[in-house]
Amino acid sequence: MSIEILPDLLGVFFFAVSGCLLAGRKGFDLIGSLLLGSLVGLGGGVARDVIIGQTPAAFSNPLYLAPPVLAALLVFWLYNSAEKIGRWLVVFDAAGLALFCITGTVKALSFGLNPVASVLLGVTTAVGGGLLRDVVANQVPQLFNSHDIYAIPAIIGAALAALSYTGGWLNIGTGFGIAVVVFSFRIAAWHFRWHAPLAVRKQKN
Amino acid sequence: MSIEILPDLLGVFFFAVSGCLLAGRKGFDLIGSLLLGSLVGLGGGVARDVIIGQTPAAFSNPLYLAPPVLAALLVFWLYNSAEKIGRWLVVFDAAGLALFCITGTVKALSFGLNPVASVLLGVTTAVGGGLLRDVVANQVPQLFNSHDIYAIPAIIGAALAALSYTGGWLNIGTGFGIAVVVFSFRIAAWHFRWHAPLAVRKQKN
Amino acid sequence: MSIEILPDLLGVFFFAVSGCLLAGRKGFDLIGSLLLGSLVGLGGGVARDVIIGQTPAAFSNPLYLAPPVLAALLVFWLYNSAEKIGRWLVVFDAAGLALFCITGTVKALSFGLNPVASVLLGVTTAVGGGLLRDVVANQVPQLFNSHDIYAIPAIIGAALAALSYTGGWLNIGTGFGIAVVVFSFRIAAWHFRWHAPLAVRKQKN
Repeated sequence: MSIEILPDLLGVFFFAVSGCLLAGRKGFDLIGSLLLGSLVGLGGGVARDVIIGQTPAAFSNPLYLAPPVLAALLVFWLYNSAEKIGRWLVVFDAAGLALFCITGTVKALSFGLNPVASVLLGVTTAVGGGLLRDVVANQVPQLFNSHDIYAIPAIIGAALAALSYTGGWLNIGTGFGIAVVVFSFRIAAWHFRWHAPLAVRKQKN
Repeated sequence: MSIEILPDLLGVFFFAVSGCLLAGRKGFDLIGSLLLGSLVGLGGGVARDVIIGQTPAAFSNPLYLAPPVLAALLVFWLYNSAEKIGRWLVVFDAAGLALFCITGTVKALSFGLNPVASVLLGVTTAVGGGLLRDVVANQVPQLFNSHDIYAIPAIIGAALAALSYTGGWLNIGTGFGIAVVVFSFRIAAWHFRWHAPLAVRKQKN
Repeated sequence: MSIEILPDLLGVFFFAVSGCLLAGRKGFDLIGSLLLGSLVGLGGGVARDVIIGQTPAAFSNPLYLAPPVLAALLVFWLYNSAEKIGRWLVVFDAAGLALFCITGTVKALSFGLNPVASVLLGVTTAVGGGLLRDVVANQVPQLFNSHDIYAIPAIIGAALAALSYTGGWLNIGTGFGIAVVVFSFRIAAWHFRWHAPLAVRKQKN
């Protein structure tokens, strides 16, 4: 657990910042920012832990409350313009995605789930917080944005994490390497507007 | 379980198709379609299993991942026009509703819940996936559409399933019969625009 | 449990009324009103119980189904104009908030969670139902409304409940007192439009 909690807390922080930034753009107040940051940072992990039948880390370990508080205060103090909020939101979201697809998968594997289920749960953890953020702020989730690619990096990261964990190669170095791959892929997909084929080949309305 | 898993998988498939069709109409890409299909097909059952305290079938049995994949591919290959998406969405949604109100109730009963709670959980399973679908796609849920009747067929189906299960009459034949009743009721309500009284007798925005 | 169930049922009723009123304003039908009332009244408590790993009270005790039914019928019979729906929605929502921040915290404490986690879970219970209500009805949650203060009264109420429970002073009198404080604070914040600082000091767009 001790080796796992730091990247998990970092992931909570990154997602919390993305939530607080969206709160800023939507004109929420500081408390709304703290709550949206908490929901985004902790939501995916709470869903994961509820699914595997554990008391969620957010409710058993008070340490998990620190990153959202820090995120809300940082966003409050550092942003006095909302010009670049959109860009930073994507960057912090990508960083959270990169860490959570790994920590979510590893937690599921260490809990005894099979690799396929663990990858699925890792992806759920990674995309869950951002999905909640966008649903609660009443906009179509980034996850379903067809202008770029969001879920594929998380799926690849979760699969690599499962492979390296099962093979016994997962350590701080390889974990960091996987996170960098996921983060870079996501940012590149956003920047260059890589996209997947549409759900139906020709749609209208 | 073996007798129960086939209708459950079929229900997952039907709901997944409804999710993929909505993804098509909203202009999501193929991955978004797969994810929305998975959320709709598996969401209700995951909620049900989390509530009764079991590891959700979607995460313990990889077979549950097949229907959403199949649904996304079918929708991708078969639809080259979105003209009739609305109609098919209602039909597949009704088919999922018809199966899940039965399988959800039976799973709750076989887990030892009392009949009232089991009916409630069956209805939750049946309407949960579609509710998630519409919330995530940022539209008012079909469940709350006052132009026709959505929940009543599911409540009737869950009650009939609980009655026949408790009475020992539930088998493939009676189960299929209940599903046909629910499906026909829902489709008729949609087609003929049967509706219930409004929540307040006279409303004004 | 017996001392706890009455305020809990009352809280369910108050939140259910707020859901049925919103259903009325949105033009939902009577069944949609019952379902939205149930979701709002029972949703926060179901989330709480799932997080602490218990079968939710709503599914184990059929008594919990009475308040939403009563709420839907009352709203149906008593409102023949929607003029004042907005005002009453806020009042009933505040009453539910006042009771749930206490009962949620006490349930978590009596289940053995630490005080910080219990306060967090109490707040989750209190704001969860209303959050679901607004998300499902496709509007930005009252929780994130920056025109007044919503979460702070719940946080204060949960903290006071945790303090008095731990100190052994919690009884019907002090519990009622805390609820009155929370309710009055929330209503005053709404009426006088007290508000917190914004999430970012200067926002645009």
